[in-house]
Amino acid sequence: MNYLNNLCSLQDLKKLAVEQLPELALEIRQALIHKISATGGHLGSNLGMVEATIALHYVFDSPKDKFVFDVSHQCYTHKILTGRKEGFTDPDHFGDYSGYTNPEESEHDMFMVGHTATSVSLATGLAKARDLKGGKENIIAIIGDGSMSGGEAFEGLNNAAALNSNIIILFNDNEMSIADNSGGMYKNFELLRKTKGTAECNFFKSFGFDYFYVEGGNDISQLVRVFERVKDTSHPTVIHMHTLKGKGVEWAEKDKENGHFVFPASFDMSAYAKAESYDSITSEFLLKKMEKDPTVIAISPATPLQTGLLPEFRKKAGSQYVDVGIAEEHAVAFASGLAKNGAKPVLLAVSSFLQRTYDQLMQDLALNASPATILVFLGNLSPGDATHCGIFDISMMSNIPGLVCLAPAAKEEYLAMLDWSLEQTSVPVVIRVPSTVVSIGSTECLTETDFYQYRIIEKGSQVAFLGLGNFFWLAKQAKDLLKKKTGIDATVINPRIYSALDQETLVKLKADHGIVVTLEDGSVSGGFGEKIARFYGNSNMRVLNLGGEKIFTDRMPMEEQYTRFHLTPELIVEDIKKCMEV
Amino acid sequence: MNYLNNLCSLQDLKKLAVEQLPELALEIRQALIHKISATGGHLGSNLGMVEATIALHYVFDSPKDKFVFDVSHQCYTHKILTGRKEGFTDPDHFGDYSGYTNPEESEHDMFMVGHTATSVSLATGLAKARDLKGGKENIIAIIGDGSMSGGEAFEGLNNAAALNSNIIILFNDNEMSIADNSGGMYKNFELLRKTKGTAECNFFKSFGFDYFYVEGGNDISQLVRVFERVKDTSHPTVIHMHTLKGKGVEWAEKDKENGHFVFPASFDMSAYAKAESYDSITSEFLLKKMEKDPTVIAISPATPLQTGLLPEFRKKAGSQYVDVGIAEEHAVAFASGLAKNGAKPVLLAVSSFLQRTYDQLMQDLALNASPATILVFLGNLSPGDATHCGIFDISMMSNIPGLVCLAPAAKEEYLAMLDWSLEQTSVPVVIRVPSTVVSIGSTECLTETDFYQYRIIEKGSQVAFLGLGNFFWLAKQAKDLLKKKTGIDATVINPRIYSALDQETLVKLKADHGIVVTLEDGSVSGGFGEKIARFYGNSNMRVLNLGGEKIFTDRMPMEEQYTRFHLTPELIVEDIKKCMEV
Repeated sequence: MNYLNNLCSLQDLKKLAVEQLPELALEIRQALIHKISATGGHLGSNLGMVEATIALHYVFDSPKDKFVFDVSHQCYTHKILTGRKEGFTDPDHFGDYSGYTNPEESEHDMFMVGHTATSVSLATGLAKARDLKGGKENIIAIIGDGSMSGGEAFEGLNNAAALNSNIIILFNDNEMSIADNSGGMYKNFELLRKTKGTAECNFFKSFGFDYFYVEGGNDISQLVRVFERVKDTSHPTVIHMHTLKGKGVEWAEKDKENGHFVFPASFDMSAYAKAESYDSITSEFLLKKMEKDPTVIAISPATPLQTGLLPEFRKKAGSQYVDVGIAEEHAVAFASGLAKNGAKPVLLAVSSFLQRTYDQLMQDLALNASPATILVFLGNLSPGDATHCGIFDISMMSNIPGLVCLAPAAKEEYLAMLDWSLEQTSVPVVIRVPSTVVSIGSTECLTETDFYQYRIIEKGSQVAFLGLGNFFWLAKQAKDLLKKKTGIDATVINPRIYSALDQETLVKLKADHGIVVTLEDGSVSGGFGEKIARFYGNSNMRVLNLGGEKIFTDRMPMEEQYTRFHLTPELIVEDIKKCMEV
Repeated sequence: MNYLNNLCSLQDLKKLAVEQLPELALEIRQALIHKISATGGHLGSNLGMVEATIALHYVFDSPKDKFVFDVSHQCYTHKILTGRKEGFTDPDHFGDYSGYTNPEESEHDMFMVGHTATSVSLATGLAKARDLKGGKENIIAIIGDGSMSGGEAFEGLNNAAALNSNIIILFNDNEMSIADNSGGMYKNFELLRKTKGTAECNFFKSFGFDYFYVEGGNDISQLVRVFERVKDTSHPTVIHMHTLKGKGVEWAEKDKENGHFVFPASFDMSAYAKAESYDSITSEFLLKKMEKDPTVIAISPATPLQTGLLPEFRKKAGSQYVDVGIAEEHAVAFASGLAKNGAKPVLLAVSSFLQRTYDQLMQDLALNASPATILVFLGNLSPGDATHCGIFDISMMSNIPGLVCLAPAAKEEYLAMLDWSLEQTSVPVVIRVPSTVVSIGSTECLTETDFYQYRIIEKGSQVAFLGLGNFFWLAKQAKDLLKKKTGIDATVINPRIYSALDQETLVKLKADHGIVVTLEDGSVSGGFGEKIARFYGNSNMRVLNLGGEKIFTDRMPMEEQYTRFHLTPELIVEDIKKCMEV
């Protein structure tokens, strides 16, 4: 670790000879493998980018020259080189830095990024501002082939190409998205790789970019040469480099999908694998359906692993599974088209990424009443990064006319909703997949499919809890504690639907209840509870809306969130007592 | 009108000889010119598509074969040919059909569409469903060169190309978007036109599409030949046809931008031009700012005319104006990049189209606290099409953390907000441009820039009105009527901000008010008022939330909306009286 140990600044890097850089790359790669093994993280993408990142910082002058990393899940080497080395070499500091670029950490990070396909657009803005100010710096966007499938990347390319000034797009082609790439464009990338960039039919040249191909995307000397050549260019330029995802870890080079992100070594995968999860419940259900019905089709916007669609599922599903790339807009419109022509599409997607398709949910899907099913995974408060908060989908989707949004509290209910959604032909249905499997041990709900009605689970008086989805169980706990502390025997309701009000049930509550408490595993702003507050606005009913705050939580521990947002039985009971005293 | 008069069905069309079709086209073109002159509508796009639409229906067999029109603002000839002729030839029926495809009108319309870039994705869904069901029909997407700049179109192309089965994309290249095209891709389309499709570097071929070029996009015999050739193809196919936008109307052929959409002949343009509007107020303000500050930059996602950026403005602004194409996602990220690098970007966009960039507003802009300004035009209840409702932006934007959302009620306030937004450097600001210019004749607000505080305009008691933006004036009217009918002297508040609560003011109201009425020119679901209802949920304060319902209003007259949603002073006062009786 000779080079890495002595490296304290970008100036130190620039003092090295090009010939010394491969040794530094080796040391960084070893550090990354060690660190990621210990803490988990994006393995494959970071290992593939070690050489290119060193070469970028060797040739360009950050922060004057500006780098924008797409998704920024490949920025570890960049962090090491820009003053954050100890976060990757010293176990005591492994938790100091996020896994994404973050301007609060360093002036070398331009944006906080975690979603796909944004880098070229952001960089185009930086470049245009430079031009307006009369500046001269280089603007470099670093984007992988997987990210290229997102529409925002395309919109960015189209406009970057029209800039008439310096912008450099480093296209990192490792022949992989998170899972395998799909889509016609990838045939062109393959052709370009095969012809070492000489093929006339060239996706990038069709936009008018200057184009350079680098076969040795993990060869620092090749990279330094081409970067020096394009530095201070006056034209929009694409450098297409071919890298090896997972380079340096044999299994990750071979199994690129599982090598994309790894769990910490200490993580007990066997326990994880054994526990029943909505991942396996969903894929098992879908496979059974598919066997009986060739029109059932599962769609993934390039995140099959995150939604339980393991390679074995995909193999069995065959043409009844489609990965559309990181293209959520297309995914929703595609689902609408499928439903309109008589198929039964199920889109499985992550809450935070569904944000990329708000308009398609409204126009392509809801306005057309296309009976597609959307399963929302990871829609909950979480201790993760600010870029991946799963608390906004309730307000995003429940305020769109025509979407039927359901939140099951238990496994049996989930399966009943899923089955109902697939078999009905009149409305698009969103189902918020709960985070932990709870079985109610009852199949009563399997025959009860009027999900527009709330279910009164425990009938009491004075106080009524409306516990949505995951938080139904919190409502139950709060009810028990309230009984214990005050003697009040509260009503507990599983509302199940969060896009519409069951007015009949709500009106009935007025007779013998004075307080309604809503609980939702998402931001209260614009969410389910506020609709209840509006409904009771002209009455004597008091309403307490509990859920997440309208903030980006950045790796905030769950305990802190539960306390801050009053989401423990104790704090809920306190709030109720205060409300009774007013 | 011999041919058109005798045409009652698609069967009638198919009985004609190819040689007779140009005469039919001429008749349809005359009918369209007559109809659009009388009622207004999309002139240029429809005139350009007459021949191609006739040829499509002549060769393919709708509704078995399925057409998906992008935006569908070019579907008039399609409607004429599919049983809706009288809507375009008989003045008594001019109002019978919408200007877009609508499955409720005809089995020949697959989707209700009004936004851009969706056709290829929707068609890919139809095609995949056909394949799952073992069907054989042709699926045809019709998309213009302007629409091609949207990311969803690109995502669709990428996946359509990977279908391995029949899908035909008719690419209507008329060398124009709504305004001029911009972006690198258009150079390739130009190259393809110049080389009659023979250039090796071919955007479409880079995805793997079969590709055909038709120079005579207004020549029916050429079109019939190529359609017959690709009919029943087993491969994803692009037909690139070159058409003349506005064909048949000399001025519209020359001035394609103004010919894109025309107002009815009876529409008094001179009065319109003379009245002060936020369009001219905005562009005048921006030009003045630009003169003093070279970093001020206006961005349009291809809708400059809709937001007051007339050709003269664009000429004067020079490089301080950028049209990014119909690419809202890019527009927001681009603005974020500009702001991050020290420029002062102002994105001028239409409420309904801003829906296409929810995630970028959150991730690229708000999460990064980039001080860009977004001006929302047409954010209001309207009698327009369901595809263009302007009532959802409040719930979409106000629930995103970090966006400061402002709604001015008057001209002076608007300008003060705009100026403040441009000069501050810490937050992204959304300003909802009012629909009608009202001057408060006061510059008091010009120095008062703490927009986080509500302004109490008239201090009363018992009832308080919070009238947001446009609806501040409705609040004033309701207050006056309430006084007259009940003697209650209500408080009137201009809240100005709808992304945050002024808790101090709200708490103070509790002292001498029992009812708060919120009024907003948008959907109440997830909107401003519900936040007020949540705030007062644990108190005795009654809250009435008034605004639009969570429905798609489809050409619903304003009177009907005002009555249905209780948005007249009379109905508001009735609601208040009822609330007091409970």
